[in-house]
Amino acid sequence: MTGTPTGQLYLIPVSLGEAPCSTTVPDEVRRITGTITDFIVENAKTARQELKRLGHPGPLHTLDITALEDTLDDTGLDALLAPALKDGRNIGLMSEAGCPAVADPGARLVARAHVLGVPVRPLVGPSSILLGLMGSGLNGQSFAFHGYLPVDEAALARRLRELENESRAHGRTQLFIETPYRNERLYRTLVATCHPGTRLCLAKNLTTAEEWIQTRSIGAWRREPAPSLARQPTLFLLLAS
Amino acid sequence: MTGTPTGQLYLIPVSLGEAPCSTTVPDEVRRITGTITDFIVENAKTARQELKRLGHPGPLHTLDITALEDTLDDTGLDALLAPALKDGRNIGLMSEAGCPAVADPGARLVARAHVLGVPVRPLVGPSSILLGLMGSGLNGQSFAFHGYLPVDEAALARRLRELENESRAHGRTQLFIETPYRNERLYRTLVATCHPGTRLCLAKNLTTAEEWIQTRSIGAWRREPAPSLARQPTLFLLLAS
Repeated sequence: MTGTPTGQLYLIPVSLGEAPCSTTVPDEVRRITGTITDFIVENAKTARQELKRLGHPGPLHTLDITALEDTLDDTGLDALLAPALKDGRNIGLMSEAGCPAVADPGARLVARAHVLGVPVRPLVGPSSILLGLMGSGLNGQSFAFHGYLPVDEAALARRLRELENESRAHGRTQLFIETPYRNERLYRTLVATCHPGTRLCLAKNLTTAEEWIQTRSIGAWRREPAPSLARQPTLFLLLAS
Repeated sequence: MTGTPTGQLYLIPVSLGEAPCSTTVPDEVRRITGTITDFIVENAKTARQELKRLGHPGPLHTLDITALEDTLDDTGLDALLAPALKDGRNIGLMSEAGCPAVADPGARLVARAHVLGVPVRPLVGPSSILLGLMGSGLNGQSFAFHGYLPVDEAALARRLRELENESRAHGRTQLFIETPYRNERLYRTLVATCHPGTRLCLAKNLTTAEEWIQTRSIGAWRREPAPSLARQPTLFLLLAS
């Protein structure tokens, strides 16, 4: 190979909420991030805050921070990766919260990096999906993440019954999320719909001082006041038996 | 509540291979781990090595390191959690590699902690499942981890076809692992069984200097020499289209 070596695409995790860097990322993530000047991000405002928090030497206004538009086709994505291929510069991909390319639109850019031959380097950091699964005590040997469930009430109940049946058939932990202002509605539908013996874990405000992780049977959840979940990032996990 | 407050169950990630702590865990994980003297572990030898690597002030021979036996019933698991309930001591749970209670037997202990009211505290660290998913460029908005697949050759091929069909139907990335000495056999069965358009990611030696992550279509994998995978920890991911 001749010319400039190809730069790498670093996948940089972003904190899940108010938490010091010393609890969310290894030192090496801060060091690597501080050497990068080209960033592709889900949300520019969040990314700037995170770069500041990580102590990027900046100055921030000199960094090239580009929002990843959902509408980009392959040509558009390839243009974002050009600094790595043409100039050998490393590029950082950042999500709005948590690990890029998981439960966010970043995977398409990573896929293009593989096609173009840009090495992909995932870095260790916080993921609500992984931390919630660890903390749930539900089956960690078989699990599935489903993203958002339907908004329509009847479709939501149907989907929850499907997920519960699939969980029972395969012993599989089912993970899903909701827009935070609809968390309490999802909770009510869950406890109304699922079997009393099914276990439900709620994992909210992970990695922050308000972290709260509780696993109970649907029957036990029904016997106590509904927990406060509104506008708090929450991961829902269920396992039917 | 009166008496000693309940200790907490910390879920401590273990490195995936040869890599400095500064790349695998936040500083706070080292600090918290260094304050714990009671450990429940998948493998005592690995756990001692990791505690040394993390710089636990020890001395190591004074620590209470108990292997988590698969055969323990609830009474046995509750006895392991007794130091938290009776003496208010924090307990550390460690896997052989990666994050405890994910793809290992630790989830049963976490489940008992929830039943007994011992707070569960998952810590950030390396997970081959999560890092492989991030690095694959495959769908991170819907994915499932299936652990080990069948050993019998015909059953393995059947299972791969099932996983591929399910992936196509739901747009779901399918993740699985194999005992390292059988990795190359699994690869051969994958490329022989799956559709040429299905994408396969191999993610091996994650977080180490030998990290290697490649995503190609089955058709493209077929056109090149089989990669060396024997005795190297590898995560397999596929997405059918």
